[in-house]
Amino acid sequence: MPTDDLQSVAGLVTALHGGNRRALARIITHIENGSAFAQPLLMALYPAGGRAHIIGVTGAPGTGKSTLVNAMALAYRQAGCQVGIVAVDPTSPFSGGALLGDRVRMRDLAGDPGIFIRSMATRGSLGGLAQATADTVLVLDAAGFDRILIETVGVGQSEVEIASTAHTTVVVEAPGLGDEVQAIKAGILEIADVFAVNKADREGADRTVTALKMMLSLGVPDKHQVMHHGRMLPITLPPHDPDPSAWMPPILKTVATQNQGVAELVAAVEQHRFYLEQSGTRELRDRLRAATELRMILRDVLLRRVLDQTPTASLDAMVAAVAERQLDPYSAARQLLLIP
Amino acid sequence: MPTDDLQSVAGLVTALHGGNRRALARIITHIENGSAFAQPLLMALYPAGGRAHIIGVTGAPGTGKSTLVNAMALAYRQAGCQVGIVAVDPTSPFSGGALLGDRVRMRDLAGDPGIFIRSMATRGSLGGLAQATADTVLVLDAAGFDRILIETVGVGQSEVEIASTAHTTVVVEAPGLGDEVQAIKAGILEIADVFAVNKADREGADRTVTALKMMLSLGVPDKHQVMHHGRMLPITLPPHDPDPSAWMPPILKTVATQNQGVAELVAAVEQHRFYLEQSGTRELRDRLRAATELRMILRDVLLRRVLDQTPTASLDAMVAAVAERQLDPYSAARQLLLIP
Repeated sequence: MPTDDLQSVAGLVTALHGGNRRALARIITHIENGSAFAQPLLMALYPAGGRAHIIGVTGAPGTGKSTLVNAMALAYRQAGCQVGIVAVDPTSPFSGGALLGDRVRMRDLAGDPGIFIRSMATRGSLGGLAQATADTVLVLDAAGFDRILIETVGVGQSEVEIASTAHTTVVVEAPGLGDEVQAIKAGILEIADVFAVNKADREGADRTVTALKMMLSLGVPDKHQVMHHGRMLPITLPPHDPDPSAWMPPILKTVATQNQGVAELVAAVEQHRFYLEQSGTRELRDRLRAATELRMILRDVLLRRVLDQTPTASLDAMVAAVAERQLDPYSAARQLLLIP
Repeated sequence: MPTDDLQSVAGLVTALHGGNRRALARIITHIENGSAFAQPLLMALYPAGGRAHIIGVTGAPGTGKSTLVNAMALAYRQAGCQVGIVAVDPTSPFSGGALLGDRVRMRDLAGDPGIFIRSMATRGSLGGLAQATADTVLVLDAAGFDRILIETVGVGQSEVEIASTAHTTVVVEAPGLGDEVQAIKAGILEIADVFAVNKADREGADRTVTALKMMLSLGVPDKHQVMHHGRMLPITLPPHDPDPSAWMPPILKTVATQNQGVAELVAAVEQHRFYLEQSGTRELRDRLRAATELRMILRDVLLRRVLDQTPTASLDAMVAAVAERQLDPYSAARQLLLIP
């Protein structure tokens, strides 16, 4: 392996397909840093993807979702799957927060070549977290990982969007976080394909399950309409199972620290995978993923093109005028784009 | 007031400056829905803004930040300020979560014309939550509100960015949320100008204060570099206090439900306001706000222009090809933009 060429796009791609994990790590670094290799690499790797099942795991801080992701990864490993984990953490130059998460995980998962973990930062990426995450998932998919777990904090808009573009979205709740209806406020109820009530050995777990059941009894929203609405390109949705209640999100109790209920949770995710394929819904989700990604890339390419053509001095003058209220930002944008 | 013309842009602007609250609500609805009035309204109102002090209040679910925002608003009212509140909640078509928040607040604040509360949704807005929030703040500013409180859940990337573009960012922590270092993981430590440890009557409040102090003793990051880095336009920062430790974020204990410590918290925010003006840092923050806003608008305008020129059928075919891996999204973007 040390003889692989990791200095060129073609060399990195070949090494990746040969199972070289250093090539994998290096490719992801290129993407995170937005290096000149990033786009050629993504273009070269794209056709090799599309086989992995992508699982979003999202929940508020304190629900123990990192531990749960860990336990799910181990369960998948025991079933013989290769597992990629992408942990989405906001950049924290102060604390190195993203690294901390990795170190905790490493204890259980270190040294296993069938598993790969990456914490996301947004450094350098104009496109932000969502773009960097999508690109990393693409690379892991092309590298042949069977299951890719994306962990997000699941309260923010970007984070919810990242999780909701997965094939299966697991929403993690926990009892005793002050408020049973936290999920409602956070707006993540409608994106769940599977619920996990983690820390289920704590008081109040049954109340949380009951609250979720009550919510679901009010009717299951059409997740695809929610995803589609205003967030991506105005495309026509392909034919799919038109009844949103054809899949009723199951609610599972887990105690991730004791590995309780994890096998059942993984089984529920796999059932959902089967449902997606049978109902034609997987194609729909892939289409929505593609539309989201294309939209992000379009916005980026367009903005970069304008910025490349605008001298910094003009930009500075424009921003100063806006800050001092001599010019509104809409007129400033029009001037920059030479719109009469 | 009922005789005001609320059917035209000019009429709405005049009524707003005359203190008509129905005009205010209607203008914000135009903006949220992205109606044809939205942009002309924002352009007309922009020059009247720039006077309000904008305060971001952000924290994880369960920290009690809504109650704290409520209490801060009442304290500001008692000091004679007009107060606007913008609560950033992800759209929840299933639950109407955003409305719930409003109703809770209404009990204390209803009927006071010196206060205005709006919960944000993202419906219809291509630009998303950050854009809609910035626009609403602009309107409240132009309407003459002295203090504008923006409440965000403070875990997600967009939400942290929204809060961090305020003049003063209050980060709310609470004891007993499972993990003292939650703030570090969430990456919000570096954007705080003031810390509030809410629910300070609970066990563990002193531990939370100690943990924050320890973090701060490791060194205060340059918030403006954090804000500037990769998130906005590549502008030159104006001259400002170059020493990031010139303002050391104070840590205040509060019990919002009992109104304890709220006056002190508001006093700390006002001290920070004074510091910003004395040190030239307020100008810097206004510049960063303007750059963020201009970038969001540029991306939107550019994307809309391309979409307007592309027939849906071409877009559908392109997205299908990307979803089926016949085409990578980067090449698809180039084809749409006619880049050779």
